[in-house]
Amino acid sequence: MKHSDEPSAAAKLVATDRTRLRRAREKERTARADLDSVLAAGFVCHLGVVVDDAPMVVPTGYGVIGDTLYLHGSVASRSLVQAPESVVCVTITHVDGIVLARSMFEQSINYRSAMIYGIPRTVEDPEEKLAGLRALTEQCAPGQWEYARQPNRKELAATTLLALGLAEASVKVRTGPPGDGDSPDAVLGLWAGVVPTSVVRGAPVPDPALPSDVRLPSHISSMSGKPAHHVDR
Amino acid sequence: MKHSDEPSAAAKLVATDRTRLRRAREKERTARADLDSVLAAGFVCHLGVVVDDAPMVVPTGYGVIGDTLYLHGSVASRSLVQAPESVVCVTITHVDGIVLARSMFEQSINYRSAMIYGIPRTVEDPEEKLAGLRALTEQCAPGQWEYARQPNRKELAATTLLALGLAEASVKVRTGPPGDGDSPDAVLGLWAGVVPTSVVRGAPVPDPALPSDVRLPSHISSMSGKPAHHVDR
Repeated sequence: MKHSDEPSAAAKLVATDRTRLRRAREKERTARADLDSVLAAGFVCHLGVVVDDAPMVVPTGYGVIGDTLYLHGSVASRSLVQAPESVVCVTITHVDGIVLARSMFEQSINYRSAMIYGIPRTVEDPEEKLAGLRALTEQCAPGQWEYARQPNRKELAATTLLALGLAEASVKVRTGPPGDGDSPDAVLGLWAGVVPTSVVRGAPVPDPALPSDVRLPSHISSMSGKPAHHVDR
Repeated sequence: MKHSDEPSAAAKLVATDRTRLRRAREKERTARADLDSVLAAGFVCHLGVVVDDAPMVVPTGYGVIGDTLYLHGSVASRSLVQAPESVVCVTITHVDGIVLARSMFEQSINYRSAMIYGIPRTVEDPEEKLAGLRALTEQCAPGQWEYARQPNRKELAATTLLALGLAEASVKVRTGPPGDGDSPDAVLGLWAGVVPTSVVRGAPVPDPALPSDVRLPSHISSMSGKPAHHVDR
């Protein structure tokens, strides 16, 4: 198994006909660092595949190693195993706020979103599979991979993991106040601004089956009680 | 314009080959009330369409009136205007927690997710368009439609709105502790449980362009400082 080196954060994303934005170009971000930032802020993506000529969009977990996105098995990925060489679209979205404008026409949502296109491959090599699954775990629960029992051969074989290159990607971000602060509507005297939204993690809830003498490990206590995702505003 | 009556919450969702779950049937929910609950808990969906034989998944805002889902215009919906009679898939996902098990194989995510399939129509009737846009606003900011300036004829014409029936839908929910509480791994003495995640709304951030004497209306102050989404645990 060979992993690519970490990509340069200053590298530019390559625009294709699919990823180039057709409108709202001011929302476009073109640096690889912008993609990395959206990827780092979450752990669930929406995977889109074509099944019997219809789109199918399913949520699934992901992780990142270098230039490769790893996706956990799902109904959609099993469809891909049956139809290899099919293009997929993976979209990751973070909702950052409700943008309340003077006019309904300018009402909007602050968000960061990444779309990645490509032909995924099913990961077969056990070593790469372990590394990919570890990346998925690190994405939402750093430290858990070392703490919990790692997959045995049978479990590994029962897990579907997809690998998708990050080469064809686009990032779109809307941030800041509504767009009608200097419009004729500004004289209406209406309140305008943003109600921020963010994802927070609560206190860990022990499994009722857990003996009372099992201590909460520090990597789990430190995951909680703080915002789960870094949000720039 | 005719809106269907409110559907019965006890009504059953109709399973088709596309919506019937192929695995993890215990996660399936089949009542219309389960779909309504997932729809009510958010305001952003992922719309999947097929463009040039490839899937395209874009986040967009939605609202609900009776048996119809209204979707705000986007690159994807413009693609649909060019290719009418195409099936789309709309997925709405709420992430409720990170499920930490004794084994990596049982690690999971608590979530509620709905998938809706259908052939959408572009809303042309101005009266239905206004009602649909109002539903979109009510979905994330109740009261704002009456407060802000409503769309004029030109703005309404410049807005793309899609309508999608809720007839073909499936709901999947994972909730509760990890699944290995009574497995041989339970003797490992490892902590297991759930780190809950939820979406919260922060204090409203006024537009810097706002004169200081504009008061925050109560429908906006009451939106904030409390969890945005109802979460069952």
